[in-house]
Amino acid sequence: MLRDALRDAGLEPRGTAQEQPPLLLVACSGGPDSLALAEAASFFARRGDYRVGAVVVDHALQPGSAEVAAAAAAKLREMGLEPVQVRTVSVPVSGMGPEAAARTVRYAALDAAVEETGADAVLLGHTLDDQAEQVLLGLARGSGTRSLAGMRPIRGKYLRPLLGLRRSETEEICDSQGLDPWLDPSNADPAFARSRVRAEVLPFLEEKLGPGIAEALFRSSRILAGDADYLDAVSADTFARLRAQPDSASGAGDADLDTILLPEAQLRELAPAVRQRVLALAAVELGGAQPSWERLRSVEALLRRTGSAGPVELVGKVSVYRQVRTNPVPQGPSGYGNLVFRKKSST
Amino acid sequence: MLRDALRDAGLEPRGTAQEQPPLLLVACSGGPDSLALAEAASFFARRGDYRVGAVVVDHALQPGSAEVAAAAAAKLREMGLEPVQVRTVSVPVSGMGPEAAARTVRYAALDAAVEETGADAVLLGHTLDDQAEQVLLGLARGSGTRSLAGMRPIRGKYLRPLLGLRRSETEEICDSQGLDPWLDPSNADPAFARSRVRAEVLPFLEEKLGPGIAEALFRSSRILAGDADYLDAVSADTFARLRAQPDSASGAGDADLDTILLPEAQLRELAPAVRQRVLALAAVELGGAQPSWERLRSVEALLRRTGSAGPVELVGKVSVYRQVRTNPVPQGPSGYGNLVFRKKSST
Repeated sequence: MLRDALRDAGLEPRGTAQEQPPLLLVACSGGPDSLALAEAASFFARRGDYRVGAVVVDHALQPGSAEVAAAAAAKLREMGLEPVQVRTVSVPVSGMGPEAAARTVRYAALDAAVEETGADAVLLGHTLDDQAEQVLLGLARGSGTRSLAGMRPIRGKYLRPLLGLRRSETEEICDSQGLDPWLDPSNADPAFARSRVRAEVLPFLEEKLGPGIAEALFRSSRILAGDADYLDAVSADTFARLRAQPDSASGAGDADLDTILLPEAQLRELAPAVRQRVLALAAVELGGAQPSWERLRSVEALLRRTGSAGPVELVGKVSVYRQVRTNPVPQGPSGYGNLVFRKKSST
Repeated sequence: MLRDALRDAGLEPRGTAQEQPPLLLVACSGGPDSLALAEAASFFARRGDYRVGAVVVDHALQPGSAEVAAAAAAKLREMGLEPVQVRTVSVPVSGMGPEAAARTVRYAALDAAVEETGADAVLLGHTLDDQAEQVLLGLARGSGTRSLAGMRPIRGKYLRPLLGLRRSETEEICDSQGLDPWLDPSNADPAFARSRVRAEVLPFLEEKLGPGIAEALFRSSRILAGDADYLDAVSADTFARLRAQPDSASGAGDADLDTILLPEAQLRELAPAVRQRVLALAAVELGGAQPSWERLRSVEALLRRTGSAGPVELVGKVSVYRQVRTNPVPQGPSGYGNLVFRKKSST
């Protein structure tokens, strides 16, 4: 599983004769998943296929977290991993909630470790169970395809080689190797939505809808990931093409960095799945947030209007309106024109 | 809502001067959803915009079902609906389970009513809650995009104008109109997965993940429906194009009704989301069942092999294998050829 993941990421073992083997860093909390992953990776280190180090991020959110991190680092060094870093971070109180804030500083710490060590990849211990939880949380938000697709197996230097493995299997690996993983008490804290999904929701669904729910959610996430990849690629191409139309140079002009014009006639011809993504790309390109589905529907509704219409306001100070071309002469019964996306200046 | 649904289905009120208004049939169980729908439709009947009748299907599965059906029909006639039919069906014991068997005979009865009356549309009372239940049941199976997209608002002559409405809203309509809906006891029977989802799973999810779960599932289903429509259309076009390639005429020949050849080099170039759908289309075209995601992955794996490979057996007696072309001379390092889909004759 780890071997396949490394191959999929283009990380061949050993490297050429002149080079050292690639350096992998295991992001390790000391919990069963990442400890099992470190153990699996250490096998490749002993064979000389890869150099394998580890990073333990101490979030300093719980009393004794420094000791937990030090104990994990000691275990990782015992496995022969090198270098093993402990990076202590400070999680700010922010508007995005404690889980998201911790994630942000954690990835910043891992990025810094990559920078310092020149690592080729960071291995993350997320399992099939984590993926199933992620999909359920996305469903609870009513999210789109990309969000329901869950975590990506590969994202830049970050690899998740255990996504196809059950959490219980990582626990078995730890057992069989005599590893003594740390059990994070916050994983059972019902204050966190993810903890409730793990401890209560998934077991309840298994009981009511039959076993195999986690695998079913995982399978759906894989299908939706392929869909999202394709739809995102088609939509990015389409956005680039529509935006580059000389037609769209009327009105505010393409050179204006705060404005994007998309020709309405061509937007109308797109399949809704692509059109909605193209409209979202325009908003994001101007620094707006990913619009909600309801907002995108409001933007689309402008295309069914006649005459000038809007604005529809999007999060991130982007407004969208319909601009009818009257010069040259309107074509078709309702004239035609552009959807104009405009970022409001903050001054 | 009903007006929008009828317009989306291309059913304009009244018809032209020469014609009668279109005939709508409400499929009514006597429950709150379909009774509220009948009430809403009767308003259009009174205005003369549409003719509105109803069909009550008596599944004869519970004692007293004939009385329930007769009482519903009486209410519908009181509303002024015409014609109102009661159609009694017999649900066979079959391998597909009681819910699927009842659904099959119910739609056959509705089809027969359309045939008899010349109706232009059948209105079904499914609500947002039904859609949310459908999505959760699909998730429990680990289904693909189309299945997670839930029920379609329009499918042929069948329209579901209440999909955006909560079940509680249909109950309020019944209350305010003094209608006395029948409450189907089987909706609370925990023997049925759908009943468990309705009575237990959705309330539990609301409690654990916050309110608005039903709306969130509905929103996801709408997004996925758009995705599925687009991906299905692209894949059908791609399948037709690959199949028509003169290249694929080698080997068994295109004229052979039991065989479909798809050129491997072109399959490899497709995005996985499209490739998997094209492979599924080939299987279904030969009379096979929609292959599971795991089976499709096995078929795809044939494309990574060198030399002849397979067969992969699919449900419905379709087998797939890789056929390498050696004449003309192989091109590229591993030769190239076709994926061959073959239906085994039943003799």
